[in-house]
Amino acid sequence: MVYNFSAGPAAIPLPVLERARSELLDFQGTGTSVMEISHRGETFLKVAAHAENSLRALLSVPANYKILFMQGGGYGEFSIAPLNLLGKNRKADYVNTGHWSTKAVEEVARYGDIHIASTSEPNGFTSVAAPSTWNVRNDAAYLHICTNETINGVEMPFWQSPPDFGVPLVADMSSHIMSRPMDVSKYGVIYAGAQKNIGPSGLTLVIIRDDLLDQAMPHCPAVFNYGSQAKSEWMLNTPNTWGVYLAGLTFDWLNEQGGLAGIAKVNDAKQALLYKAIDESNGFYSNRVAKPDRSWMNVPFSLRDESLNTAFLEEAKSAGLLFLKGHRAVGGMRASIYNATPLVGVQALVTFMNDFAKRKG
Amino acid sequence: MVYNFSAGPAAIPLPVLERARSELLDFQGTGTSVMEISHRGETFLKVAAHAENSLRALLSVPANYKILFMQGGGYGEFSIAPLNLLGKNRKADYVNTGHWSTKAVEEVARYGDIHIASTSEPNGFTSVAAPSTWNVRNDAAYLHICTNETINGVEMPFWQSPPDFGVPLVADMSSHIMSRPMDVSKYGVIYAGAQKNIGPSGLTLVIIRDDLLDQAMPHCPAVFNYGSQAKSEWMLNTPNTWGVYLAGLTFDWLNEQGGLAGIAKVNDAKQALLYKAIDESNGFYSNRVAKPDRSWMNVPFSLRDESLNTAFLEEAKSAGLLFLKGHRAVGGMRASIYNATPLVGVQALVTFMNDFAKRKG
Repeated sequence: MVYNFSAGPAAIPLPVLERARSELLDFQGTGTSVMEISHRGETFLKVAAHAENSLRALLSVPANYKILFMQGGGYGEFSIAPLNLLGKNRKADYVNTGHWSTKAVEEVARYGDIHIASTSEPNGFTSVAAPSTWNVRNDAAYLHICTNETINGVEMPFWQSPPDFGVPLVADMSSHIMSRPMDVSKYGVIYAGAQKNIGPSGLTLVIIRDDLLDQAMPHCPAVFNYGSQAKSEWMLNTPNTWGVYLAGLTFDWLNEQGGLAGIAKVNDAKQALLYKAIDESNGFYSNRVAKPDRSWMNVPFSLRDESLNTAFLEEAKSAGLLFLKGHRAVGGMRASIYNATPLVGVQALVTFMNDFAKRKG
Repeated sequence: MVYNFSAGPAAIPLPVLERARSELLDFQGTGTSVMEISHRGETFLKVAAHAENSLRALLSVPANYKILFMQGGGYGEFSIAPLNLLGKNRKADYVNTGHWSTKAVEEVARYGDIHIASTSEPNGFTSVAAPSTWNVRNDAAYLHICTNETINGVEMPFWQSPPDFGVPLVADMSSHIMSRPMDVSKYGVIYAGAQKNIGPSGLTLVIIRDDLLDQAMPHCPAVFNYGSQAKSEWMLNTPNTWGVYLAGLTFDWLNEQGGLAGIAKVNDAKQALLYKAIDESNGFYSNRVAKPDRSWMNVPFSLRDESLNTAFLEEAKSAGLLFLKGHRAVGGMRASIYNATPLVGVQALVTFMNDFAKRKG
């Protein structure tokens, strides 16, 4: 038995993998794999509708929002979102809270007049400034935020129901979407790479309010145009059919966990347990993020004695605790504890951490 | 036993699916699925290198060409290729040989000064004009061709070694790449959606000559920038890891078939058998494409009596011959006989067609 703390592509629920394996060669009696059928055929259209409808129900997506399954990942959306949303006046505001926000700002710079409404760079991306202090232009086409920074382990504490900024709110939710219930209606556009809480990599989720579908820049490619994809029910080009199929199975599994309210309880227990182990280690382990802004999904931590890093990783691996090495931009360790990581996995990690600290501390 | 004639997503070799199934839950003793590991980790980097090196060997890709595994499919490349290649003078020439060429021309129109060097629209896209008649501007940044039209069933007979047009040749090879040996050095850029001969959908192959990596337009998104992706060994964003893995397995299978020379012999036998059945049906079945330009991969055909279409499709399905309905733009029937469709499958189709014609003719 192993537990997978990979930041992404990340753990997929075991029942999802088992189901996929059981029907890999013969999907619902068709005699073919789900990967071998036309995206426009009756069989796959049911798979597509199931994924979309399940997502809509789980997230309570309002009727005036479209759900699109596209390609290019979160990084792709750093360009695709501006290409879709900047057509009217080319002005957009960004909040910079870490590694991925910074990348988003770098990407959008080529498309228009970009203003940084707030940045936590001065404090090393260890907190999120209060929204009341953000300096948002009232004529911006949108305000962009990254509600959970995968690398820095910072999560906006108000993400489930953010305040009104007077302009459409566009959010990269790649690494925590579907980890808790949220109010979609507070956002104009939500996007996410699938490879954390939704499915395999190579699939991108976009949720967009209908009135924002009509402001693409002329250079926006058709297959990345939200309006064109909405009109063709995201079948303008061939979608990642395997990814959509696995997403649908993941949503089934989420429903079995009691939906987002159910998984949120488990996620809360997981994060509480792990941060407690770090905070009560007498400094053997540490996490730099301000407590209210700590991510429930990505927990970076350092060992006081960094010369123990290699031993920590090797012993963890031997204990079946995989992929705990921190991102190269931050160093140290990182435990990503997405939906598919069970509570018992976090318990095993904490037991190992406590034991390691006792032996080496 | 069924045979799958889907145009795409299309049949995947059975041994590839069986191998994927056998290691779906535990990839090479890691205790995790290949979908659950970081694209930058040691285990996946080996998968990536295997896919890339196998492709390079199979296609004899010269050392001065980069291989990139990207996202967005062939349709995405209709925009991505111009965004990458039009930066210098925004002039490009296109040859229009069918449905997908037409889409490519529609997409590129927004990016520059586009000239149609040749079109077979007047004859209903049933042939390819001789390259000597193409009117190519000598200052075009590139000449774009679609070497195999999936919907029209037209294949450029010289695609394996095209003449020199004095400008870089850019080719959409989505639906016949790797079906026969070819001379990559005759092309500047080759791209292909994976979902016909390479793997599942959601994966795009790009092969590009090094000197063409540096002429992107300023609006080109980073994750779709050939130069940026080449520099980061196509890991700038998270690739479709499952797709890359399956592509590698498909390349292993191709090697077991004797590589491209081996599979070409099988493909030749398949196409000869099927066109013979059509041509010798006394007009019961017909194919409109000029014989030298007929595709080895996509064989559209019509029944003289179209009122028999439904019976043909239903009886074929009962006989285990799947997805023979033609594209809605053309009507009638289409048998896509990609690498993964075995000769015995085409034999079964021909036997059925002959029997059907005998009973209904």
